Amino acid sequence: MPERITPAPSLVALLSGPDRPGIVAEISGWIFDNGGNIIHADQHRDHLNNVFFQRVEWAPGNNEPNRMLDDLVKTAAREWQMHARAALSSDCPKVAVMVSRAPHCLQDLLLRFKAGEFPGELACVLSNHPDLREIAERDGIPFHHVPISPEDKPGAEKRQREVLSAYSPNLIILARYMQILSEDFLDLCGCPVINIHHSSLPAFAGAKPYHQAYQRGVKIIGATAHYVTGDLDAGPIIHQDVARISHRRSVKEMIRNGRDLEKLVLSAATRWHLENRVLVYGNKTIVFD
Amino acid sequence: MPERITPAPSLVALLSGPDRPGIVAEISGWIFDNGGNIIHADQHRDHLNNVFFQRVEWAPGNNEPNRMLDDLVKTAAREWQMHARAALSSDCPKVAVMVSRAPHCLQDLLLRFKAGEFPGELACVLSNHPDLREIAERDGIPFHHVPISPEDKPGAEKRQREVLSAYSPNLIILARYMQILSEDFLDLCGCPVINIHHSSLPAFAGAKPYHQAYQRGVKIIGATAHYVTGDLDAGPIIHQDVARISHRRSVKEMIRNGRDLEKLVLSAATRWHLENRVLVYGNKTIVFD
Amino acid sequence: MPERITPAPSLVALLSGPDRPGIVAEISGWIFDNGGNIIHADQHRDHLNNVFFQRVEWAPGNNEPNRMLDDLVKTAAREWQMHARAALSSDCPKVAVMVSRAPHCLQDLLLRFKAGEFPGELACVLSNHPDLREIAERDGIPFHHVPISPEDKPGAEKRQREVLSAYSPNLIILARYMQILSEDFLDLCGCPVINIHHSSLPAFAGAKPYHQAYQRGVKIIGATAHYVTGDLDAGPIIHQDVARISHRRSVKEMIRNGRDLEKLVLSAATRWHLENRVLVYGNKTIVFD
Amino acid sequence: MPERITPAPSLVALLSGPDRPGIVAEISGWIFDNGGNIIHADQHRDHLNNVFFQRVEWAPGNNEPNRMLDDLVKTAAREWQMHARAALSSDCPKVAVMVSRAPHCLQDLLLRFKAGEFPGELACVLSNHPDLREIAERDGIPFHHVPISPEDKPGAEKRQREVLSAYSPNLIILARYMQILSEDFLDLCGCPVINIHHSSLPAFAGAKPYHQAYQRGVKIIGATAHYVTGDLDAGPIIHQDVARISHRRSVKEMIRNGRDLEKLVLSAATRWHLENRVLVYGNKTIVFD
Repeated sequence: MPERITPAPSLVALLSGPDRPGIVAEISGWIFDNGGNIIHADQHRDHLNNVFFQRVEWAPGNNEPNRMLDDLVKTAAREWQMHARAALSSDCPKVAVMVSRAPHCLQDLLLRFKAGEFPGELACVLSNHPDLREIAERDGIPFHHVPISPEDKPGAEKRQREVLSAYSPNLIILARYMQILSEDFLDLCGCPVINIHHSSLPAFAGAKPYHQAYQRGVKIIGATAHYVTGDLDAGPIIHQDVARISHRRSVKEMIRNGRDLEKLVLSAATRWHLENRVLVYGNKTIVFD
Repeated sequence: MPERITPAPSLVALLSGPDRPGIVAEISGWIFDNGGNIIHADQHRDHLNNVFFQRVEWAPGNNEPNRMLDDLVKTAAREWQMHARAALSSDCPKVAVMVSRAPHCLQDLLLRFKAGEFPGELACVLSNHPDLREIAERDGIPFHHVPISPEDKPGAEKRQREVLSAYSPNLIILARYMQILSEDFLDLCGCPVINIHHSSLPAFAGAKPYHQAYQRGVKIIGATAHYVTGDLDAGPIIHQDVARISHRRSVKEMIRNGRDLEKLVLSAATRWHLENRVLVYGNKTIVFD
Repeated sequence: MPERITPAPSLVALLSGPDRPGIVAEISGWIFDNGGNIIHADQHRDHLNNVFFQRVEWAPGNNEPNRMLDDLVKTAAREWQMHARAALSSDCPKVAVMVSRAPHCLQDLLLRFKAGEFPGELACVLSNHPDLREIAERDGIPFHHVPISPEDKPGAEKRQREVLSAYSPNLIILARYMQILSEDFLDLCGCPVINIHHSSLPAFAGAKPYHQAYQRGVKIIGATAHYVTGDLDAGPIIHQDVARISHRRSVKEMIRNGRDLEKLVLSAATRWHLENRVLVYGNKTIVFD
Repeated sequence: MPERITPAPSLVALLSGPDRPGIVAEISGWIFDNGGNIIHADQHRDHLNNVFFQRVEWAPGNNEPNRMLDDLVKTAAREWQMHARAALSSDCPKVAVMVSRAPHCLQDLLLRFKAGEFPGELACVLSNHPDLREIAERDGIPFHHVPISPEDKPGAEKRQREVLSAYSPNLIILARYMQILSEDFLDLCGCPVINIHHSSLPAFAGAKPYHQAYQRGVKIIGATAHYVTGDLDAGPIIHQDVARISHRRSVKEMIRNGRDLEKLVLSAATRWHLENRVLVYGNKTIVFD
């Protein structure tokens, strides 16, 4: 009787720390000496600040995968003075999606989760409006409606966190969620939060970016996926894309074009995050794509 | 003996004014009734503000071209309540280029003028530094060096205008000219001024935009060609383009990539302007490309 | 009591025929003289072959819209020697979608029809496989499964045409339909057929284009939407788009990237067709976007 | 007195060979153990064919650079069963450019060499027409005119090789050279040859691709830089880029747009080649950019 039917998972680590001679040899040597076999490795150096970054993916050989991950993280901290985030390719992180009324990003994420494009599980949808309930539920995804009144935003955020905590999400995606999350929420939610902003940040931060872009007469519109920090629309950028427009395009058409940009940019950022390809560094990201 | 060796020039008018029923029929009817034959016509309507815009290009038939242009401009004002800017395809507008030290945009413009890509003539190059003299002069273009000291900017601008006025330019191009022109200069120079800004405006207005972009960790850099107004980097945008970058790109590489963007964006904006394809409208442009 | 609650529809005509002086004035004059008001007009001339093309959209004024459309088509034929295709903005053309097993283009079309991005109605889905039944039916769209065996393709096509004829479609979309339609089918189906080919035609016509692209080591992949003719993958191209790839991308990843391209290209082509923006001319299209 | 004024050069190796466990650790370990310090390293694996590829750049420490390069190449062959191509960052490869009559690619290369964008030296220009002599010579680059008659192509190619051999070029660039080079020439010229083809290969191989593209009614035009092999326009692709066009664009305008594409694509491919970033593998390339 076979003990293992599925292929052994591979291991992934994202490492960062002070650069020094031999660090590449040391990390790859450790993996090899411990019986692992590197499948992919990608490095980056910030020569200005002398920081080294690496994404390395390897097969664990005869090692018990979780133990080998633990060992690497410990070795990284102790011997290489590096911070390591590590994961198994068989991990299935849980994702919560927060929405308001616009359906397109949610629908796009639902289809991509279903198509197997993301290594993760869509655990629940949370909204401050009831409108998108059917879209979530007909695909079997739990939908929670937590209304928000301007008078009691802290209370609403508390209820949101209670709902979310039942799912222990590893990632929260703001899929055109039209409220600003407080720093408290971000501190307490316990996982990274990715937002899609419908402009090429830093241009047109804030509300109604397409209207701002129309007023300014720009010839290009964009969308930006970024990690959310306490500073509105100023968190580390993961991905951006743009589309050309002309004077022929009304705000309404720009919004329609923009929806496609938003879907593409948010889904790419989500996939890279879930595949452990994104390292946050200061207010920037390194994307090992 | 042939009466005409070169083909008759075509006429171009850029019209704008209050929209009303029948305006298209009226303009095209006037051209036809007066013996002209429309070659291209392109319209745009701002439905919000009820403004009509048209670029129309036509063969003058047996009319004397300059007289027909005059007639159209007068008819537009008197009968259609429209402002018209008109030109002959055989016009050869004079272009002055202002530069500082970076040679790439000037070199690009020189090559394109020589290759016949622009319907116009490069009349002179004016710089606050002597560095690019040889580049201009070896192609037979007069080069003028007017140094600028912070203490006497008004005086320097006066000398710049004196130099320029000898050429009666129809267009001034700031091809990486690194000084801010005063409103006085803009009022008195007597022609439109196009600038290339090395970012996707409105992001990163002001100095050292590639350094700003690097600091912000954006994934896309851009370049913007715009008409210069008294408000720094905020004039009507003519053209923009972008390029993807990644964490792998140093500021130096971004600057190199950016040079190519700047050349392409500035040359397209210059060509559209010289082909009478750009209508300024409020703080925006309509580009009939 | 108001006689009309919805706004009056606008009229659209796509005209083509021999170019001659005054044709723009004549068409716009006819519309104005008959009480209409032009909203948009866009022209194109093929100077080599002396052909004139126009898309014109106008408000019918006090005219009965259908009668005014008829009048224009007749006038075009009789007085201007032009062929005209005309439509009301209130028309709701019926669209049949043919699929095989890949769901992404069908899902994308379903969402866009639901979001109101297309002026038309998704009437039915027809497939040679049963796989996508649930996707269509849960949105209330009739799904028909007509299996095709290599031995009896003519018989299968006859059954397909019978199924389709019950819906009288004005457009058939091949949304990753993996069979070749015979010339007979195309002659008898009674409406245009749009296909999405998953490469930048004319490169990689035929089967498995991503595998072909991988083998050839190209750095760019594409997708092409075109009208279907008897000549495989050689019909008039409506729209194309591309994405950069690198040696890092496996065929599987190229296929995933390609799915997004296919959705964007097919949906844009579908919208332009349904908005009466596409004129077929020889083996090319003119897209008045 | 300082023994060395310029910074020590870095070393670059492009390695390829059978993949096996520990190969990354082995290479990086060898460099570290021999006193080098890795600056950049990028790997790729072809999992289908079990081939490993690496570009590694390192500082030689106290080693004599040329000796350390030699040692690595020998160690690669003997101990790792890998083929290695190695270079010093201080190398200045010689480049010969072959042209016909179109000046734009030559002018672009001249400016970029002058601007220091390429780690190499433009050694000479060779043409089958005399037209571009002044462009080369005014920048001090030797220009050789070797006419080609259809009756004596082998003789002309022999004279071309004689001219070139005086410069011992490390790279030949065909910058819109409009003759087909024989396999003999390619065998005997002694260095790689890069060509710019003015279409998105494999579409529109052969002559007059813009005319072909216009006839086919494509919505996108492209340019392709590739290594030249005996098989016309079928060698390994290094880089491609595209631009959108519409029915509005004449062949003449496509050619003008195309010139910009050709310059960008050829210059990027040239830079990557000269920076030792391109590994040819079968009929494909791996570009470590």
